[in-house]
Amino acid sequence: MAPVKKPETPQEYKTMSGIPLKASYGPDDLASRGWNYAEKLGDAGQYPYTRGPHQTMYRGKPWTMRMFAGFGTPEDTNKRFKFLLESGQTGLSTAFDMPTLMGYDPDHARSLGEVGREGVSVATLDDMTRLFGDIPLDQVSTSMTINAPAAVLLALYVAVAEKQGVSPDKLRGTLQNDMLKEFIAQKEWISPIRSHMRIIRDMLVWCTRTMPQWNTISISGYHIREAGATGVQELAFTIADGIGYVQLGVDAGLDVDDFAPRLSYFWDVHNDFFEEIAKFRAGRRMWAKIMRERFGAKNPRSWLLRTHAQTAGVSLMAQQPLNNVVRTTMQALAAVLGGTQSLHTNSFDETYALPTEDAAQLALRTQQLIYEESGVANVVDPLAGSYFIETLTDQVEAAAWEYINKIDAMGGIVKAVEEGYPQREIARAAFEFQREVDSGRRSIVGVNKYQSAEEGDNIPTLKIELETEHAQIERVKSFRHSRDKAAVERALAAVKAALKDDKQNVMPPIFDAVKQNVTLGEICDLFRSELGEYRDPAYL
Amino acid sequence: MAPVKKPETPQEYKTMSGIPLKASYGPDDLASRGWNYAEKLGDAGQYPYTRGPHQTMYRGKPWTMRMFAGFGTPEDTNKRFKFLLESGQTGLSTAFDMPTLMGYDPDHARSLGEVGREGVSVATLDDMTRLFGDIPLDQVSTSMTINAPAAVLLALYVAVAEKQGVSPDKLRGTLQNDMLKEFIAQKEWISPIRSHMRIIRDMLVWCTRTMPQWNTISISGYHIREAGATGVQELAFTIADGIGYVQLGVDAGLDVDDFAPRLSYFWDVHNDFFEEIAKFRAGRRMWAKIMRERFGAKNPRSWLLRTHAQTAGVSLMAQQPLNNVVRTTMQALAAVLGGTQSLHTNSFDETYALPTEDAAQLALRTQQLIYEESGVANVVDPLAGSYFIETLTDQVEAAAWEYINKIDAMGGIVKAVEEGYPQREIARAAFEFQREVDSGRRSIVGVNKYQSAEEGDNIPTLKIELETEHAQIERVKSFRHSRDKAAVERALAAVKAALKDDKQNVMPPIFDAVKQNVTLGEICDLFRSELGEYRDPAYL
Repeated sequence: MAPVKKPETPQEYKTMSGIPLKASYGPDDLASRGWNYAEKLGDAGQYPYTRGPHQTMYRGKPWTMRMFAGFGTPEDTNKRFKFLLESGQTGLSTAFDMPTLMGYDPDHARSLGEVGREGVSVATLDDMTRLFGDIPLDQVSTSMTINAPAAVLLALYVAVAEKQGVSPDKLRGTLQNDMLKEFIAQKEWISPIRSHMRIIRDMLVWCTRTMPQWNTISISGYHIREAGATGVQELAFTIADGIGYVQLGVDAGLDVDDFAPRLSYFWDVHNDFFEEIAKFRAGRRMWAKIMRERFGAKNPRSWLLRTHAQTAGVSLMAQQPLNNVVRTTMQALAAVLGGTQSLHTNSFDETYALPTEDAAQLALRTQQLIYEESGVANVVDPLAGSYFIETLTDQVEAAAWEYINKIDAMGGIVKAVEEGYPQREIARAAFEFQREVDSGRRSIVGVNKYQSAEEGDNIPTLKIELETEHAQIERVKSFRHSRDKAAVERALAAVKAALKDDKQNVMPPIFDAVKQNVTLGEICDLFRSELGEYRDPAYL
Repeated sequence: MAPVKKPETPQEYKTMSGIPLKASYGPDDLASRGWNYAEKLGDAGQYPYTRGPHQTMYRGKPWTMRMFAGFGTPEDTNKRFKFLLESGQTGLSTAFDMPTLMGYDPDHARSLGEVGREGVSVATLDDMTRLFGDIPLDQVSTSMTINAPAAVLLALYVAVAEKQGVSPDKLRGTLQNDMLKEFIAQKEWISPIRSHMRIIRDMLVWCTRTMPQWNTISISGYHIREAGATGVQELAFTIADGIGYVQLGVDAGLDVDDFAPRLSYFWDVHNDFFEEIAKFRAGRRMWAKIMRERFGAKNPRSWLLRTHAQTAGVSLMAQQPLNNVVRTTMQALAAVLGGTQSLHTNSFDETYALPTEDAAQLALRTQQLIYEESGVANVVDPLAGSYFIETLTDQVEAAAWEYINKIDAMGGIVKAVEEGYPQREIARAAFEFQREVDSGRRSIVGVNKYQSAEEGDNIPTLKIELETEHAQIERVKSFRHSRDKAAVERALAAVKAALKDDKQNVMPPIFDAVKQNVTLGEICDLFRSELGEYRDPAYL
């Protein structure tokens, strides 16, 4: 019988990463590649973990609904944390302001106008204490998005916990602490890359000994993607970063199985629904193979790629802002179908400002609606076996290996980053994407197609008052005045000595320093003076 | 190696239709049933059409974005139609008010307070002319949700087209015209079921001869589902209705291949993401088999189940109304992954009132975002081959056949409906669903879980002014005064004679009547007097 055929509209069909798409996929697409269930998938909770790190997935435990939040003073953010916990959020995630991220106290000249604006301002033990006021740290898991000064923030967090009577081994959470992606994409650095890698090494060693429930590094594709990388590039460069960190720990003399189970990942989840799902699945398979074969890890927990995910901030548009609810819903659904362990959903108003309480709650509700009402969490890796999804998963993986092999051939990720290789690849992809948008080959609803006169810039937005900055400046000044100056000097000298001596671990003196009320900026000033300040060579 | 296992949380895992769900599905789930690609799926555009009615699906033609719209006067709705067309909608869909749906003119006592309130008020050729003012009917496809008085509205539409110089054979669109589901669920009837079936028979015959591009019946699961049916019941009872209509046409002496290609379907798409996708796929396979094997249709176009879909109105909640954007997005995505040909997306404010212009535009944008940005329309039936989806598709189909076999054994759908069988089954399902919600076994975000103090009833809503009703009453009165009374009497007598004589076709005299300015209410009064008025026996 004759098939009912309609001609295709003339157009190039491909994923956002440029993988060409056939109109239809069938059993032959798998058979012709000799595709094999046991080898390519295996059951969930079984090597190579394509179907998920856990056997029962969300039946055993829903993903952690973890909304990235932070603005204004520590009290402002503490209030938002409590609002989100009351709204049913299941984990905390802290957004710091630009001065904190760059290692400056609020009263530094470089902090001007930025204090509390894009995240919470934290410079002292006093700030950190107020940030987690009335939140028992043995009962929450906390993520902190902090990198160049990560050691200082970790020390502050542990010190607050100790004041609550909670020892470090009881703390659950994640430090982002991923400097490789800063050099690749996000550009929030202090010192040169190898100096930061040395501090990360010290943290790996210290956390492995004392914080067995703490995720030491969140190897982050998010910022790589947001800088314009394709999904394949995000996957490849992030896994290459992961290889770099595992090598760092091994070179420091750690047994891979002692620290690898506490590395976690952080993916972006963008618009291309199926390619994103394929990326999550391919990533787990690649990491399992790398950890078992390349690093010889024996503990299955070392093979698992566990991931946090965040919907794509760059995909949100200022025009017709409620369209962003639709985008975020689809992206969140892709993350769940991809098998994420933790998820942040962006708020629709984030192209205008940090989210209002209502917008953040709607974003959290998006996750709750997926979990409670759609039924998609009832079955493990529900798309497994789909001719298209399995083909795409293989293709995404193959394309990512190509990048990783190139980086290996260059001598590893640190070398490749120093040479600007991933940076250039991302810039090229970003340029190509923009060309597609400008030419109209790629449609963005409300922007280059279906524009409206009404642009929606009348939505309510969160305002950060200038008083926040003044208050934080006054606080850090009075904090400095009230402390034991001699103890501060001694503590700073110890940090300085450790920074100068690669054989020492910098963590113990940093812990001591924050307890002696040394500030974030003071410790980071030592990074700058002792390790040097890094300047962008501008490869692009 | 030992799998990483977490215990399941104690809970019953099943679809919304009650199909039990395993934690995970693999190749054995298909192999153990002897599942076979060619038999169960076949390529898209090939029998049994599980993967879609067309070979290239949305590559050949995107689904029709068809927003159901109607309120106030014909001018109000004409303005909304034009707004939606300008916003990128690709087909019209008309919502009529309650008096129109029940066959009463605006000045009838039963119309009081209802004119233009839940749809547009149309009673005369003058109204219909204004409804489609400045819209060239040879260039749009129009859907009309009208049932008991469908013959009258079709006649009015054709008469307006003729005034535009467009002959009936050029008209593209769909008349709902599905009275079986009215008796099963929606309860908007005039006369007893067999009288309505006779009028539908006459329309089938007339349209088959004169309107080759017009879909004569939209066999509708939507209202069955919205009345509380499960997805399986919706599928089963609607296909049983379809069998009833095909039998009607065959019994009227039509060649099945002459009218079956112009029957279309209309599915609800509810929250259970994968069961909905399975329902769409199972439905195509069942219909293809029924048409080819049971009715011996030879033309592949007779075998195709083409469908419109609408996101589930009953799933929308008044509490936290923006949550409805999230629900509608997931439902729309399921409809697209299920392979719908046409889609209406509900507006988030519809639990409060008919949608505002902004809310309707956001609902349309939802479809445009899926089509333009998510990439899911690039590949035909992308989930095909998934162990879970294929298993669920088979299970949904098997459960639906059970109902259809029972209905066949009862002597067919008309008999089953007269005995109240589908009605009782639906009532039982609705009761069970409500028990699950009341007991908290089923969570509804914002309703029995994650409630907020802020209930969102401060959103802007569309107000229908009382002047609408007064204006429509004045209009129909002056319309009646200005016409040729003798011609009206002759036309009404001809309709009356045709209604009394089962051998005559009622369509020609109804066409003549509307052109002689007979009103909707006057023709439907003849239905009431000549065919009798139906009263609900209340089976439940």
